[in-house]
Amino acid sequence: MIVVLPTQMVKSMIGKVIRVEMKGEESELVGKLEGVDDYMNLYLVNAMEYRKNEKIRNLGEIVLRGNNVVLILPEE
Amino acid sequence: MIVVLPTQMVKSMIGKVIRVEMKGEESELVGKLEGVDDYMNLYLVNAMEYRKNEKIRNLGEIVLRGNNVVLILPEE
Amino acid sequence: MIVVLPTQMVKSMIGKVIRVEMKGEESELVGKLEGVDDYMNLYLVNAMEYRKNEKIRNLGEIVLRGNNVVLILPEE
Amino acid sequence: MIVVLPTQMVKSMIGKVIRVEMKGEESELVGKLEGVDDYMNLYLVNAMEYRKNEKIRNLGEIVLRGNNVVLILPEE
Amino acid sequence: MIVVLPTQMVKSMIGKVIRVEMKGEESELVGKLEGVDDYMNLYLVNAMEYRKNEKIRNLGEIVLRGNNVVLILPEE
Amino acid sequence: MIVVLPTQMVKSMIGKVIRVEMKGEESELVGKLEGVDDYMNLYLVNAMEYRKNEKIRNLGEIVLRGNNVVLILPEE
Repeated sequence: MIVVLPTQMVKSMIGKVIRVEMKGEESELVGKLEGVDDYMNLYLVNAMEYRKNEKIRNLGEIVLRGNNVVLILPEE
Repeated sequence: MIVVLPTQMVKSMIGKVIRVEMKGEESELVGKLEGVDDYMNLYLVNAMEYRKNEKIRNLGEIVLRGNNVVLILPEE
Repeated sequence: MIVVLPTQMVKSMIGKVIRVEMKGEESELVGKLEGVDDYMNLYLVNAMEYRKNEKIRNLGEIVLRGNNVVLILPEE
Repeated sequence: MIVVLPTQMVKSMIGKVIRVEMKGEESELVGKLEGVDDYMNLYLVNAMEYRKNEKIRNLGEIVLRGNNVVLILPEE
Repeated sequence: MIVVLPTQMVKSMIGKVIRVEMKGEESELVGKLEGVDDYMNLYLVNAMEYRKNEKIRNLGEIVLRGNNVVLILPEE
Repeated sequence: MIVVLPTQMVKSMIGKVIRVEMKGEESELVGKLEGVDDYMNLYLVNAMEYRKNEKIRNLGEIVLRGNNVVLILPEE
């Protein structure tokens, strides 16, 4: 059985667009992942904020604190 | 008395379908567990989002941050 | 004065039925404690979910993430 | 200037009755502090739950997870 | 450029009156800072609880858990 | 591929004005970043509180606890 560590999985998404749900936030962040560390702190560029699949605003480059990340998924 | 460490218990679920409740989320995530680490960060494939036992959407592959996991149970 | 470390106290409950309040959850979990670690991650069997002292559902075996545990008490 | 470390302050309350506010809880816990560790995990006996200064129920012995503690004060 | 570490900044407030916002609390705490550690656990004396700039009650000496601190500012 | 660690990205903002969203807060903080550590604890000066892009009040110098930071972005 091949086991993929969750942080390795996130690191494999560097250079790609991801969608992130943050704790206690109604909106989701979508952006290109430029950097990540072992705490799942994330650095995104071209980030946008979405609410109920509707784009709210452009944020540009943002840093997200790992312990407040709930869910990360690759954006197709 | 045989004591089973909680993280070992989660690791024994690799390859199986699990149900996960996340903090501050109304919905639950169900998916096949592909990877887990000591922080209970989870990597799921074929993940689906459920609300009140009703399927909301397919998420595909997702990474869940361990400190925001509330409850994990094997899905029969 | 005899001081009892909180984690030792929880470890002494292994094999017994405990009640657990989780953060941001209205319901409480009751089950037999099969395993615990230093982070208060918990592994329960025969777990049941209660809301306002009323049983909601059987959960079977569950893993609870320690940092989202609020309160643990032995169930008489 | 004499500086008192917060965890030392809590340790000095062992054997005394304390009042604890937990995160995301409306009620407060009052009980005799029997044990505490460096994470502020607390072990209380003769614990009671209060809401708006009104006693709700006796809890007996309880363990409180340190990271969900908001505020501790000695109960006179 | 002179960089001031946030925890050093808090330590420099020892002996002074500070205002603290805690997570998930409507009220703010104001008191004289007697002790702080690297986790930003705080020990305050002559602490008072404020809600919307109105004093609610005297708390006396309190310990605040660092990870639930949101914001600290010196009180003039 | 050049990978930028999230904490390095925040450190590169020292001396500049940033906008910070905190967990469980409706308002946002805007101020000049004077210090940051590896936990993303932040020390801001000339800090102001905003709600829905409207300035609520001047806070002066503040310390923000890293684990309650949700999002950091440079303020143009």
